[in-house]
Amino acid sequence: MGTSFALAVQRAYPKVVLDAVETNAVHREQVQLRKVFQHVYPTTDLVAAQYDLIVLAIPPAIACDLLSWTTLHAPLTVDLCSVKRPICERAQALELTDKFIPSHPMAGKATGGPNDAEAALFADRPWIFLEAWMPPADLLLFVRSLGAIAMFVPDAGAHDEMVAAVSHGIHLTSLSAMLTSETMRAQWPMLPQLSGPALWDITRLAASPTAFWLDTLLDNRAQVILYLQTLTSQLNRFEQALQACDSEGLQKLLLDAQTARKAWENARQRTDK
Amino acid sequence: MGTSFALAVQRAYPKVVLDAVETNAVHREQVQLRKVFQHVYPTTDLVAAQYDLIVLAIPPAIACDLLSWTTLHAPLTVDLCSVKRPICERAQALELTDKFIPSHPMAGKATGGPNDAEAALFADRPWIFLEAWMPPADLLLFVRSLGAIAMFVPDAGAHDEMVAAVSHGIHLTSLSAMLTSETMRAQWPMLPQLSGPALWDITRLAASPTAFWLDTLLDNRAQVILYLQTLTSQLNRFEQALQACDSEGLQKLLLDAQTARKAWENARQRTDK
Repeated sequence: MGTSFALAVQRAYPKVVLDAVETNAVHREQVQLRKVFQHVYPTTDLVAAQYDLIVLAIPPAIACDLLSWTTLHAPLTVDLCSVKRPICERAQALELTDKFIPSHPMAGKATGGPNDAEAALFADRPWIFLEAWMPPADLLLFVRSLGAIAMFVPDAGAHDEMVAAVSHGIHLTSLSAMLTSETMRAQWPMLPQLSGPALWDITRLAASPTAFWLDTLLDNRAQVILYLQTLTSQLNRFEQALQACDSEGLQKLLLDAQTARKAWENARQRTDK
Repeated sequence: MGTSFALAVQRAYPKVVLDAVETNAVHREQVQLRKVFQHVYPTTDLVAAQYDLIVLAIPPAIACDLLSWTTLHAPLTVDLCSVKRPICERAQALELTDKFIPSHPMAGKATGGPNDAEAALFADRPWIFLEAWMPPADLLLFVRSLGAIAMFVPDAGAHDEMVAAVSHGIHLTSLSAMLTSETMRAQWPMLPQLSGPALWDITRLAASPTAFWLDTLLDNRAQVILYLQTLTSQLNRFEQALQACDSEGLQKLLLDAQTARKAWENARQRTDK
């Protein structure tokens, strides 16, 4: 995501000078081929310059550990982590709240690395900020100039609950459906041949690379657990209606789900306010 | 599905004469406009002719009740129901096993009616038969001539378990995910605006019309309950790994799901044997 970010910045502001730190040797070589950074450092130890802005496009645990360092090298640091409580808590503990803005562009692939980076990654995608950590006006203009739609949620906890609902929990729903089908394949080897689009669509996320998800799910585990418990209770409602042969109750659940989907489709439209 | 079936037959065998019974007045008018049937009767009481084959493209409960009648009007009856135990049990109880072949073309939309019927509905789709109720060779040739891929599962119970896994259970997974997200929208009204393709894909089936699913889920409730229980236990494994902050256990679940998805993709290829 760091390289995509740099490409998007370069497209919007052709004169801006960008440097990068990339510790992974393979990725470092790929980054250099994209010719978007003036310098690509293998480690922060080699960085001596001062910057206007430092952007942390790294896993939350590493972002937390680098926070003190970045605030020595720039007046403003922004992170792009998909879980917000760990880094917000660290910034508060270090009393860096006036030099740090948490943010989360809901874009990008969990895979790929610099080879797959693209300037259009953020176009028409939400870029979340926290009302408890309001970004300066020029930072808002900056992300909008990259094509993103700035959105605001109350605070880090609210953010982490929301992404658990729309992303992390959905991910585990897909993987659990895949594992359930796989359990049943032991008895019925021909199941994949009988499967239609519904199964293939719903289990699609199971093919995702695991490293990003392992970190993300652990970082946001309290909220993901809440999602899993809510999902389990919804499954139980269907099970109870079927156990009781409760046609009326089952019909209500089917209609509630249909109504919910329509309400979501109606509310889908994103606005940048 | 009845009209699609007739259109497919007419395309494969232009000289065959087809009659229909359609009790719903709106659908009856639509059927007549498709000009595929010689007669469209409003009720079975008006049918006096004898046929080579009668096809039951109706809900299982009605198919069960019509079974005696059909065997008086044709030497062979085939049903297209998506749940197989009720009608197989009825055929056995009525001692009609030599005049009835259960089958299940895995095609069609739960919606639409005759207006949406199409001759290509069965093309390259599995058409399931039961090894315990082997179809005569000419019936197999017949469904293959409609473009379908004949597949065999052991018996009605096996069939119902398999479709619970690849279709009915998947359906309730999607609806439960939608209801879970809807629960969370009460607290966070902007969730639909934050949602990406993963959520929209996984909750897609919630928009389905409910009448077909109400019957199907109740008819297959024992197997659907088994699916829901297996899914719940998979969700619990994720929850336990997260509760225990068990990075190794979580990583194993993510990898198992990834491996399963790849195995399913490899096994996907359908063959008509």
